[in-house]
Amino acid sequence: MSGPSKMSDLPPVRPGMVVGILGGGQLGRMLALAAADMGLSCHIYCPDPKSPAFAVAAQRTVAPYEDEAALAAFADTVDVVTYEFENVPAHTANFIAGRVPMFPGPLSLETAQDRLLEKHMMAKIKVPTVAFAEVSKQADIYSALAKTGRPAILKTLRFGYDGKGQALIRGGDDPVSAWRAIGEAPAILESFIDFETEVSVILARGRDGAMRAFDVAGNVHANGILATTTVPAPVSPGLAAEAVAVAARIAEALEHVGVLAVEMFVVKSGDERKLLVNEIAPRVHNSGHWTLDACEVDQFEQHIRAVAGWPLGPTAPHHRVEMLNLLGEDADAWAKLAHEPETRLHLYGKRDAKPGRKMGHVNKLKAL
Amino acid sequence: MSGPSKMSDLPPVRPGMVVGILGGGQLGRMLALAAADMGLSCHIYCPDPKSPAFAVAAQRTVAPYEDEAALAAFADTVDVVTYEFENVPAHTANFIAGRVPMFPGPLSLETAQDRLLEKHMMAKIKVPTVAFAEVSKQADIYSALAKTGRPAILKTLRFGYDGKGQALIRGGDDPVSAWRAIGEAPAILESFIDFETEVSVILARGRDGAMRAFDVAGNVHANGILATTTVPAPVSPGLAAEAVAVAARIAEALEHVGVLAVEMFVVKSGDERKLLVNEIAPRVHNSGHWTLDACEVDQFEQHIRAVAGWPLGPTAPHHRVEMLNLLGEDADAWAKLAHEPETRLHLYGKRDAKPGRKMGHVNKLKAL
Repeated sequence: MSGPSKMSDLPPVRPGMVVGILGGGQLGRMLALAAADMGLSCHIYCPDPKSPAFAVAAQRTVAPYEDEAALAAFADTVDVVTYEFENVPAHTANFIAGRVPMFPGPLSLETAQDRLLEKHMMAKIKVPTVAFAEVSKQADIYSALAKTGRPAILKTLRFGYDGKGQALIRGGDDPVSAWRAIGEAPAILESFIDFETEVSVILARGRDGAMRAFDVAGNVHANGILATTTVPAPVSPGLAAEAVAVAARIAEALEHVGVLAVEMFVVKSGDERKLLVNEIAPRVHNSGHWTLDACEVDQFEQHIRAVAGWPLGPTAPHHRVEMLNLLGEDADAWAKLAHEPETRLHLYGKRDAKPGRKMGHVNKLKAL
Repeated sequence: MSGPSKMSDLPPVRPGMVVGILGGGQLGRMLALAAADMGLSCHIYCPDPKSPAFAVAAQRTVAPYEDEAALAAFADTVDVVTYEFENVPAHTANFIAGRVPMFPGPLSLETAQDRLLEKHMMAKIKVPTVAFAEVSKQADIYSALAKTGRPAILKTLRFGYDGKGQALIRGGDDPVSAWRAIGEAPAILESFIDFETEVSVILARGRDGAMRAFDVAGNVHANGILATTTVPAPVSPGLAAEAVAVAARIAEALEHVGVLAVEMFVVKSGDERKLLVNEIAPRVHNSGHWTLDACEVDQFEQHIRAVAGWPLGPTAPHHRVEMLNLLGEDADAWAKLAHEPETRLHLYGKRDAKPGRKMGHVNKLKAL
């Protein structure tokens, strides 16, 4: 696998064949449900024996990501591999990709695993981001702050998600305590900007390079975790089109195959609005869960179509929608939510409703 | 479990609990996919180790329906039981229902298992059917033909599906050869009528007695197997409403819980059209597969909602639709079908594409 020409030469994954998925959380679970409806079988690989995706897959491997014997056995049973999270260890990804086609490819994965590589990639293709600076040792923080100004946010380069591995540095804060808070790990300092809203683009790129984007979504976070997604997003059609164009440029640059999520800030600049890319995820994304009920082909089927070498499906929504995450005890309201006629409830089959844990989501539908 | 008051007292099946499904074909598979999206876990019981539903369920039992030890072990792991086909042996059903709540209940199952019981139930509640007569021994055929006239169709009372166990008796045919063709089993002789179209009603009744019907569908069979379903059906709104009312009367009479499918003939009577019920199925039904893409809550989720004691979901379609079954080699066209923008493809994960075997279906969508 070394480029788009080879990718499109690869035969498609046919009905009856097996899709391997690294990671067994709710995203893996929803990918497996979509694959099943396409007549494909799934093999889930995850170290956690309680993984919710295991309950809907034909084959399951419970093993560490470092277990080469288990990875080799897994690779032998599958026709294509994808992943539900971007923190798959590089060694694991390379080991798998050496044995079986893996989509999205190594470039997407490596870029999304490292916030600095991600920012440099965007700078290279002239996609605007917030101001940033590398912090590889404690002493770097001061020069970095000189670049970004305050407030700024210090983030570990790797393994951050849902607001983890981040520390804010405001006017009077001691930058060194932020450095300690994130574990003194290699980091990036970013300007903390006052954005008007956050939007995301959920786009798919096929093995043949074809691209289809879902409608741009508006996102609201709480405590670093996505709370709601609204479609259409509260932005002008022109800005929405620009957001899709930016996401497409990134997907092209990465030779991405599969769903790509691109989160962007909308900031006011005089009377204008402009977009700054916040981060990307080389996978299906929480801010695309609305597509399950408002589109004929949802992000999960679209991702499987792309990685399987099938044509991409249509993306036009047939409803307006507001997606609300059910975190922790929120999911206890399932009976009430199941009664609401315009509310579609999705639960992930997780047992422990720890605070902040994503237990499910609802899509509240309205006529277009 | 002995009546509707006890049924509605039974607590609902909560997220994390287990739904047991007898039967592992495509209907069981699509039920399991729907249950998963509701946060429920499934345990599939089926004698065939190649059952396509196994690939999407957390627990699987491969054992004969007569294996009481296996049935008892199955019952111990589940919170409610349902079934994907009406030919579950009576002993199996009673054994299970004695250990764990089972929906639809014994009355629905027994009635649908016996064409004569079914006709008598309909006569009792004044639901019109074709003329019929019992044929329990060879000599009964002549008196039966006197009642039904010719052409008539001889059907085994039990275990018939997709046109199996049926023989037509036309003007010059020897009735005894028809009796031999169906294996000299207890049978019913029915008038073979010249219907204008066939419609079906897919209706759900909850544990609390609430009912919701999907839009009436028009069906075309070929070689005794459903070929296409079209929604809306080519009948007047008045006749469609009457069809729903007839199905509701049957569901009430059976104290049915779950999805009930009622197939009806539309026959011309002078300038009027009238409905004759052909047969019922106490389960999700092939003529309801269109709901997967044209309704927010499809027949599979609706059935799980009903048997789990959840409120029923809305049934209004957001598209017009034509469903086409993919039989045998029809499914080889999957790549072409996946390219069509208005066609939603569903494949069942079966390996052997034997002629006439249901391998999948497509829903072709049109704007309302």
